[in-house]
Amino acid sequence: MILYGYPMSSASYRVRIALALKGIEVTEVTKQLRRGEQRAKEFLEINPQGFVPVLGLDDGRALTQSLAIIEYLDELYPQPALLPATPLERAHVRALALMIACDIHPLNNLRVLRYLEGTMGEAQSVRDAWYRHWIEVGFEALEAALARDPERGRFCCGDAPTLADVCLVPQVFNARRYSVDLAPYPRIVATDAACHELTAFAAAAPEKH
Amino acid sequence: MILYGYPMSSASYRVRIALALKGIEVTEVTKQLRRGEQRAKEFLEINPQGFVPVLGLDDGRALTQSLAIIEYLDELYPQPALLPATPLERAHVRALALMIACDIHPLNNLRVLRYLEGTMGEAQSVRDAWYRHWIEVGFEALEAALARDPERGRFCCGDAPTLADVCLVPQVFNARRYSVDLAPYPRIVATDAACHELTAFAAAAPEKH
Repeated sequence: MILYGYPMSSASYRVRIALALKGIEVTEVTKQLRRGEQRAKEFLEINPQGFVPVLGLDDGRALTQSLAIIEYLDELYPQPALLPATPLERAHVRALALMIACDIHPLNNLRVLRYLEGTMGEAQSVRDAWYRHWIEVGFEALEAALARDPERGRFCCGDAPTLADVCLVPQVFNARRYSVDLAPYPRIVATDAACHELTAFAAAAPEKH
Repeated sequence: MILYGYPMSSASYRVRIALALKGIEVTEVTKQLRRGEQRAKEFLEINPQGFVPVLGLDDGRALTQSLAIIEYLDELYPQPALLPATPLERAHVRALALMIACDIHPLNNLRVLRYLEGTMGEAQSVRDAWYRHWIEVGFEALEAALARDPERGRFCCGDAPTLADVCLVPQVFNARRYSVDLAPYPRIVATDAACHELTAFAAAAPEKH
């Protein structure tokens, strides 16, 4: 399999973590987002959305959207499981993942920051405030969601990483990059630290790719 | 079960469609988003994110995030299935759903429009252009993704509605509300029309709630 990605792309980072947790080896192809390589014609034929990550399968088919890719990997390579065993727990883990993947990350995507800058003419300070705002609002809700679960364990749900942790770590990475004050979110910080103790999370980090 | 929602909320609309397709009856409780009812203390105890929809289970637990709720419903009430049988097809359907749920809808949420207006002081015309831009960019990619699948059928994937159609119809509703020109997206329009022929989609429409 080929993973088309970009080291600093959160969504690529998620898929790298999932692959590393499951011990799946892939060929990595880097698309330089800042140079617009993901908008090149040949890549649009692979993914008309022009986004990374894309997982190219050995038969030539291509899977897009990080959460869809990770659920696919979890179905095909069930161990270690990234979703819990019961529908109720799975719904909880998916909800935590979507709180990040829908309600924080898309607002802070490069294309959105470029629209704020290029089309709307917003200054760097406005764009940075925007970026931090959506992380802070999102982390406040995520911290509260984690706090409600007294049997949470070391990770978002239990004592093994799930899809929620796979989304959390790249988002914390982005928060630190934009100097978001993480002191109000002790459970998020502790969960991120627990993840970083695992080789798979460390191996998937942007600086390793 | 109780569905906390709001008629015009796309994410609530998705869950209403899924419930109707599966013939599941719930009690509906409306949260007036424009009056901020979803930010009231007692609702934040149900969902710390302060969003609708929330599915309140009979044991008092609450599920959040529309896609997580719909996957839960699909696991508990498997017929009619909202996800196809094979991992590859499921990945395709989830990717189409996420193209809407991650890459269009969160950018056009009420809270984002309010930030553009309140914090950034942007005029109505700028906010409307913003709203339409993310739909147009998203629909262009979605149309291309649908066009790539020659065996697509009447719906996004095959001849029965899936999670992708459940997300598509509320997004087309929003596009029409903001007068987006849908002529460039004939497959999206045809799929939306095929969905509206089904009683479940009609029964879930905002004007019915």
